[in-house]
Amino acid sequence: MASGLVVEETLHMVPGDGDTSYARNSTVQSDLQNKLKPMIEEAVASLLKDDGATANAYCSGMAIADLGCSSGPNTLVLVSMAIDAVRRHCSELQQEPPELCIHLNDLPSNDFNSVIRSLATYIKTQESSSPPVLASIVPGSFHGRLFNKRSLHLVCSTASFHWLSKAPEDLVRNGIPFYDRDEVVRRARRSIVIKAYARQFNDDFTRILHLRAQEMVPGGRMVFSLLGHRSDDKPESAILLLEFTNAILHEMASKGLIDNEKLDSFYIPIYGPSEKEVREIIEAEGSFSIDKMAVHESLDGIDAPKTAARALRAVMEAIIAQHFGPSADAMDEFLKITEKFIEMAPLDAFSPNKSSAFVAASLTRRT
Amino acid sequence: MASGLVVEETLHMVPGDGDTSYARNSTVQSDLQNKLKPMIEEAVASLLKDDGATANAYCSGMAIADLGCSSGPNTLVLVSMAIDAVRRHCSELQQEPPELCIHLNDLPSNDFNSVIRSLATYIKTQESSSPPVLASIVPGSFHGRLFNKRSLHLVCSTASFHWLSKAPEDLVRNGIPFYDRDEVVRRARRSIVIKAYARQFNDDFTRILHLRAQEMVPGGRMVFSLLGHRSDDKPESAILLLEFTNAILHEMASKGLIDNEKLDSFYIPIYGPSEKEVREIIEAEGSFSIDKMAVHESLDGIDAPKTAARALRAVMEAIIAQHFGPSADAMDEFLKITEKFIEMAPLDAFSPNKSSAFVAASLTRRT
Repeated sequence: MASGLVVEETLHMVPGDGDTSYARNSTVQSDLQNKLKPMIEEAVASLLKDDGATANAYCSGMAIADLGCSSGPNTLVLVSMAIDAVRRHCSELQQEPPELCIHLNDLPSNDFNSVIRSLATYIKTQESSSPPVLASIVPGSFHGRLFNKRSLHLVCSTASFHWLSKAPEDLVRNGIPFYDRDEVVRRARRSIVIKAYARQFNDDFTRILHLRAQEMVPGGRMVFSLLGHRSDDKPESAILLLEFTNAILHEMASKGLIDNEKLDSFYIPIYGPSEKEVREIIEAEGSFSIDKMAVHESLDGIDAPKTAARALRAVMEAIIAQHFGPSADAMDEFLKITEKFIEMAPLDAFSPNKSSAFVAASLTRRT
Repeated sequence: MASGLVVEETLHMVPGDGDTSYARNSTVQSDLQNKLKPMIEEAVASLLKDDGATANAYCSGMAIADLGCSSGPNTLVLVSMAIDAVRRHCSELQQEPPELCIHLNDLPSNDFNSVIRSLATYIKTQESSSPPVLASIVPGSFHGRLFNKRSLHLVCSTASFHWLSKAPEDLVRNGIPFYDRDEVVRRARRSIVIKAYARQFNDDFTRILHLRAQEMVPGGRMVFSLLGHRSDDKPESAILLLEFTNAILHEMASKGLIDNEKLDSFYIPIYGPSEKEVREIIEAEGSFSIDKMAVHESLDGIDAPKTAARALRAVMEAIIAQHFGPSADAMDEFLKITEKFIEMAPLDAFSPNKSSAFVAASLTRRT
């Protein structure tokens, strides 16, 4: 099973910068980051203008974190957007910018050597600006504590908070597979599966908010987007990407590329909540007020089946490899089948384009 | 030449955990860390008892940094000593320990993947203790700023601050080699070379103190040791290890294993100051008061010529490789020659045992 422990130790995007790497197959995530730009700029402006208390508020510098930074070209996009915004707003306000400290977080199995190389290059570009940009790597799960109490001013995250801490326990305990081979059984159980996933997301996201609230200063800002869907979509939208991925895996199993039996215990720990669910969890948890929410419906760069297939592989390969231990050839076949499925059914509910809505939010830590 | 830029980008101990790795050839450094234990424990006790202001002083947690943590089994020794001391003293004082945040620093070219693996294992051992231990990796040079202003409570470092930011400019500019092939010329110029190195160390160590003072809270503590010598030793002791290493390189060059011409522009950026020099620089810089200084004269684990030779290779290989680009065979020959030299002249001034005094100090950031 995909337990919490296993997820934390093995989940990572494909490392390095080779053909199948996340670094070269993450244009979707890049697009998402750009969509967050206005929210980040607004959050920075509000942090700097807040109460005119800037000089005191940032006497030890302003700390900006990216949770789930991954590796490759996207790693520094959110934090560098924030830094650019700080410099620009301070220049407009004719005030000295605070010292800036960027914290890049991901799981310990992330390719941090590549992150550190990108970071060294970025820091060099900032050398001519004063005060300095300082940087740290924070390896660990955002389902646990990462930072000291009241140490963060701005927390950013794209395409990460939909990763659950573990497979839903109800399903594992009762031996209910995510994706039953029998389509009738699968359809009959779908609502049970969705509810179990929704419960897990509720628990996990509540905890993420609770932990971040401890780590952020009162008045601090959090801007994020996660895989989700519009509130008027069907509940099935929450697991569309998983159903699509499992359909590919069943095709692979039918060709003998992976073990058929292992499919019954394979749960991808992702849930894509509706905008309404996200809002309700934030309100119920209570540490944050909502400044803005949005749903980003279309994703540039994922139109071509080949691009979409490679993006899916870059994200899912580690978790598939950990469960099935497929050969490299099998994963290449994963790519071909994915591409074929997308080409065959571009308007089908299975298509990842249909589940590509992302829920974005901009929050303020209540004082 | 070994410019500041090159040092920063290429200096690192031999990565991984193979036969020649720093991880498996750093017993000297481990011994040095153990020698710092009483100073770290005293610093922690004093931080916790200070003014009874603990609850406020550490409301955002206590931050502990190791500068030059390297990789391998030594990486976590200093910070875990500090954490153990915090838990023990808080238990004695019957007070809740503060949240602890450990920061592991080294140059970006360090093997941080291995550091993060060690860290993940260590953090697991701390899970049962409350409050949590949080951790971050801070890639960068301690000759520059690393942390936000007033963010550190305890700074530790072993066997790192003797690394200079660059080769002494006077020597490079005037084309004075560190180690002239002609022994008469070499002896005649020795005092010029030593003075140039001493000036560079003075500049660099003054800057290290100045930068750390910015990053530490008033009353914060710094405990470190660095390669040095007793104040009553000859000034030549400051460069004994470099002369020894250069003698080996000249032997290699005479055998055609490395380029003879390149020796003239090879400067190892290390200087081993006297206890008196260290004290005078600290007093002149003025940010810190000295609580205690000590000289550790003997080093366990370096007695066997083979061990000593491997330790020297693990530390020097990167900087030799960057300058001479030797083959793997040539570096194996480096090992053999080193071992032979140590066996031949155990009482000779060249022997690294003679230059193995380390200067230790425990300082308090003035309020």
